[in-house]
Amino acid sequence: MAKTKRSESQPGTLMLIGGAEDKFEQKFLLKWFFESSGGRKARIVVLPSASESEESGAIYLQVFTDFGARSVEIIPLFKRDDADLSDVTRELVKATGIFMTGGDQSKIAHILHGTASLRAIKGAYERGATIGGTSAGAAVMSDPMIASGIGGSLARSGMVKLGEGLGLTQSLLIDQHFHQRNRLGRLLTAVLSYPDMLGIGVDEDTAAVIRHNDHLSVIGRGTVTIVDPSEAHSANVATTPDKSPLAFSRIVLHTLVHGNRFDLNKREMMSQE
Amino acid sequence: MAKTKRSESQPGTLMLIGGAEDKFEQKFLLKWFFESSGGRKARIVVLPSASESEESGAIYLQVFTDFGARSVEIIPLFKRDDADLSDVTRELVKATGIFMTGGDQSKIAHILHGTASLRAIKGAYERGATIGGTSAGAAVMSDPMIASGIGGSLARSGMVKLGEGLGLTQSLLIDQHFHQRNRLGRLLTAVLSYPDMLGIGVDEDTAAVIRHNDHLSVIGRGTVTIVDPSEAHSANVATTPDKSPLAFSRIVLHTLVHGNRFDLNKREMMSQE
Repeated sequence: MAKTKRSESQPGTLMLIGGAEDKFEQKFLLKWFFESSGGRKARIVVLPSASESEESGAIYLQVFTDFGARSVEIIPLFKRDDADLSDVTRELVKATGIFMTGGDQSKIAHILHGTASLRAIKGAYERGATIGGTSAGAAVMSDPMIASGIGGSLARSGMVKLGEGLGLTQSLLIDQHFHQRNRLGRLLTAVLSYPDMLGIGVDEDTAAVIRHNDHLSVIGRGTVTIVDPSEAHSANVATTPDKSPLAFSRIVLHTLVHGNRFDLNKREMMSQE
Repeated sequence: MAKTKRSESQPGTLMLIGGAEDKFEQKFLLKWFFESSGGRKARIVVLPSASESEESGAIYLQVFTDFGARSVEIIPLFKRDDADLSDVTRELVKATGIFMTGGDQSKIAHILHGTASLRAIKGAYERGATIGGTSAGAAVMSDPMIASGIGGSLARSGMVKLGEGLGLTQSLLIDQHFHQRNRLGRLLTAVLSYPDMLGIGVDEDTAAVIRHNDHLSVIGRGTVTIVDPSEAHSANVATTPDKSPLAFSRIVLHTLVHGNRFDLNKREMMSQE
């Protein structure tokens, strides 16, 4: 995939991992990222900016190196000032795979927003790179993004905080650790405020892979839930007191497992090959 | 309501309470049942058959008597053999309100199924009575009914057991303690097996009131969730191993609060009056 030169309307691949991916046994998802980034010819950059320290990137450095990638590097980008350094952007711009670790999505968004590094990441993506992220590293890819919130399957006013994300996609709202932390409520609440977007809830050790901005496929052990508010109307979103239940009608719900594919334009599951 | 004579196509009222209704303070839902049953002219029968003992009916006897109902009676129907006694059926057939307590829905279904008492309950309903039930007493009203299951917001193969219910409605699958016990998954799993039915998940201290078989309205503190599988297809319901996630597309989800109304034929929320 990553070797193919694409036009700007046919960018690379987004790999949204719901957190807690297997890093020690079969490493199925990380192997998929490595292959998508070019396999042995891959130039992989690990960005631990969402976390507190460079060490959170070390395990990924190890895994991708063990797979045999030509070049794997951790960029210790923890300050916004460093995100305009040419040493940093040079590595990002030539990467065929960029992997963002977990941590706090607001942290990585703050460091990258409006910087040369973010332009370099988007440039790599436009030229066909695979941009992967796990947990916070997945949530941060959209704009707006889900910054934080509380658990529960019931949509409640004010249960989710949105923030400015990286904007690699502007049509999806991404949530992670989805069923493990019972986050349907906050994803429903988020899409009711952004009815032009699709909500994507990714389980742990599972990935939603998005190609060409329009096809989503699922790999891994869990599920990917898609919450489509395009036919919905809400009776009380604007007026409900904080933490009270939101009333709504016609949210369309899809839950996909490994191997299922979804057309993001038609908003429907694609038939199995 | 209950005083109006209706044809068989216009039966009485079903009041499905999600359990844990207020019995000591404002008693909003029980007051509603009392009024719907005819108020001071009501002839109310409390059926504690889902529970272990007559005592579970005592609080309802007290509450309805305090409200001023003309006649309130607990029928201690705990054995299937007793359900054909004419003493029992005589009380049921002339009731304007029949209230079924919580407990185990399989127990009350076993006691009543195929008996003169169930025919008497259906007869009272056809003549306009209000049939109320809380928790197990709500779940048992449909046929099939949700007999038991496990919690979780993710639909999984085999997570719900269905059984033969009373059949006061054959188009709805009713679940209770809905968000409190995180039961969306089992309701999704149930309707994926019965795609002609609508799933109704009722929260605690909340009721779904169904009139004329076609209008649902919500009263109480929580929400009523409606899960409509009529447009859905499932990729793997028939083949998924036990407890594995079910994949599906286009389940339509509605969540209603106090005062919202829903057209069960058109399957859409009705505009506010």
